[in-house]
Amino acid sequence: MGGDFAPAEVVRGAVRYALRAARGTEPPAQILLVGDPDRVQAELAAASEKEGEPLPPGVHVLPASEVIGMDEHPMEAVQNKRDSSLVVANALVKQGKADAAFSAGNTGAMMVAAISLLEKVEGVSRPAIATLLPTEAGHRAVLVDAGANIDCRPSHLLQFALLGSVYAQAVLGYENPRVGLLSNGEEESKGNELSRKALALLNAAKGPDLNFVGYIEGNHAFEGRADVLVCDGFVGNVLHTLSADAKNITDETAREAILDALLRLRTQLDYAENGGAPLLGVNGIAMIAHGRSDARAIMTGIRLSVITARSGFLHALRSAVARGQQAAAEGQA
Amino acid sequence: MGGDFAPAEVVRGAVRYALRAARGTEPPAQILLVGDPDRVQAELAAASEKEGEPLPPGVHVLPASEVIGMDEHPMEAVQNKRDSSLVVANALVKQGKADAAFSAGNTGAMMVAAISLLEKVEGVSRPAIATLLPTEAGHRAVLVDAGANIDCRPSHLLQFALLGSVYAQAVLGYENPRVGLLSNGEEESKGNELSRKALALLNAAKGPDLNFVGYIEGNHAFEGRADVLVCDGFVGNVLHTLSADAKNITDETAREAILDALLRLRTQLDYAENGGAPLLGVNGIAMIAHGRSDARAIMTGIRLSVITARSGFLHALRSAVARGQQAAAEGQA
Repeated sequence: MGGDFAPAEVVRGAVRYALRAARGTEPPAQILLVGDPDRVQAELAAASEKEGEPLPPGVHVLPASEVIGMDEHPMEAVQNKRDSSLVVANALVKQGKADAAFSAGNTGAMMVAAISLLEKVEGVSRPAIATLLPTEAGHRAVLVDAGANIDCRPSHLLQFALLGSVYAQAVLGYENPRVGLLSNGEEESKGNELSRKALALLNAAKGPDLNFVGYIEGNHAFEGRADVLVCDGFVGNVLHTLSADAKNITDETAREAILDALLRLRTQLDYAENGGAPLLGVNGIAMIAHGRSDARAIMTGIRLSVITARSGFLHALRSAVARGQQAAAEGQA
Repeated sequence: MGGDFAPAEVVRGAVRYALRAARGTEPPAQILLVGDPDRVQAELAAASEKEGEPLPPGVHVLPASEVIGMDEHPMEAVQNKRDSSLVVANALVKQGKADAAFSAGNTGAMMVAAISLLEKVEGVSRPAIATLLPTEAGHRAVLVDAGANIDCRPSHLLQFALLGSVYAQAVLGYENPRVGLLSNGEEESKGNELSRKALALLNAAKGPDLNFVGYIEGNHAFEGRADVLVCDGFVGNVLHTLSADAKNITDETAREAILDALLRLRTQLDYAENGGAPLLGVNGIAMIAHGRSDARAIMTGIRLSVITARSGFLHALRSAVARGQQAAAEGQA
């Protein structure tokens, strides 16, 4: 029920995914649509008609009587609307009835619901949002934190590095992913107070679970010098939203010439890769989609949810955090 | 003598500018080339040959025996190399023999030389680098600080707002320029610790010299909702370098299709607008070019230097700072 084009586009994206899964072109999954049953059923019928195919198997409707609006205060909304689609979806994950919760609704509410219901992985104090940035030659880089934690301490950035590294390994399949810390220069003397302190922590934490490669400058972020880019959520949010809006880096004289090319680029940016951004560090898969997601974005976000749920990411994260805690304890002993 | 392609491309850019100025297609200016006289003279001859025209009037050579390398420590280099081209150029401005210093050399050294020789405008504690961002429909936005001040206090951001506002008015001709504070959301509850405190200061300082419009999100930065975008130098540097590298926001399958269009875009980004970035807040015009500047970037950087020097920016800045100090004193009284 969440998102600017919900429930129509969300339901249609789910139907499109299920159709492809039935044909074997997407990983198999059961999709539980959580919301107002009448509206969802009506949208299912409409989606089937638009796609020109009968409803595929594997799409189910689960009732939720409330909706959290896009502009509601996240904490209050989650506390007061326990039967909202967003809260119910996270509760299904908590109860083991779903492997992932995916929403294009209120981002803050999704974070609050995921953290309060699924709880944080032991040893993780600040769950963080990861987004995938396209880099040169088709490579992907994981940007953490893309906006969950606006004011950060150096130790939080160390956690983001670990979260991103485990994600890059488990979900993207990168062996020993290179982790870089976003900064204003590559020399160790660069950086602001936060990044300089984080640099020291990250250098000290280098090891089998953390292939830290140092500072990465903004102009190298898309070059693929690192598989994971770490920054605080303030910088990450601005970067993420800005690069998603790269179509506007143009002016009138260039607009027409660039339109086709940027549409293709934007298609890749928005849909093929950025259909969902996982909240890393909670005991379950919580995937956040852009509020403006259309059916195609929803379909790819479901794909990323399925892949993430099947990846063993959570298990790998718990193991890595435990190893990190043990190493820290031994270091202190 | 500074820059990756100096002195050849720097001299050629100057010659190209002078040729156009002689034809009346660039604002008139006398160009003082500061450096090794033999090498500069040789490059002048080479540039004349490449351009296929005799050397135009208005190009002069002033000797400087030293060169500050791109990787030298800025403070030490400026202290030890008093006869370097970069230091001599700033000294010429200090002595009133030049109206602007322009360099593609060591950015840090250029900042140190400009601040130490020209000194800060009274009332300005942190000079800042301004860059021009293209926005939709051909509009330009001034981004301050693009990297001079990595760790900032809220009061610094207030100064950046004033510097950028005066620049937008004096140089770009915007009346009552709209000043926005870069943040992760538009509501006043958003922002990190620094931006929230700066928001309060900026709101309190609203007035005839500061048309503050509040937070601007990253994804609206290129939409032209503000004429001046304020952020700390860490964020500004990452943003600036990242957007200058927007060509890399692509992957293999999109590369060919997008190449032509991005080349045009890049041409506009790099050359037509970004030939130089002024250091605002010193008693003189100090313009910093990208180290990789070619002749065309140098030519447009000279243009921006000339326009800035002729704009009355310095006078307007001194007046605005004085009014601000008076208002603050009256507010305290």
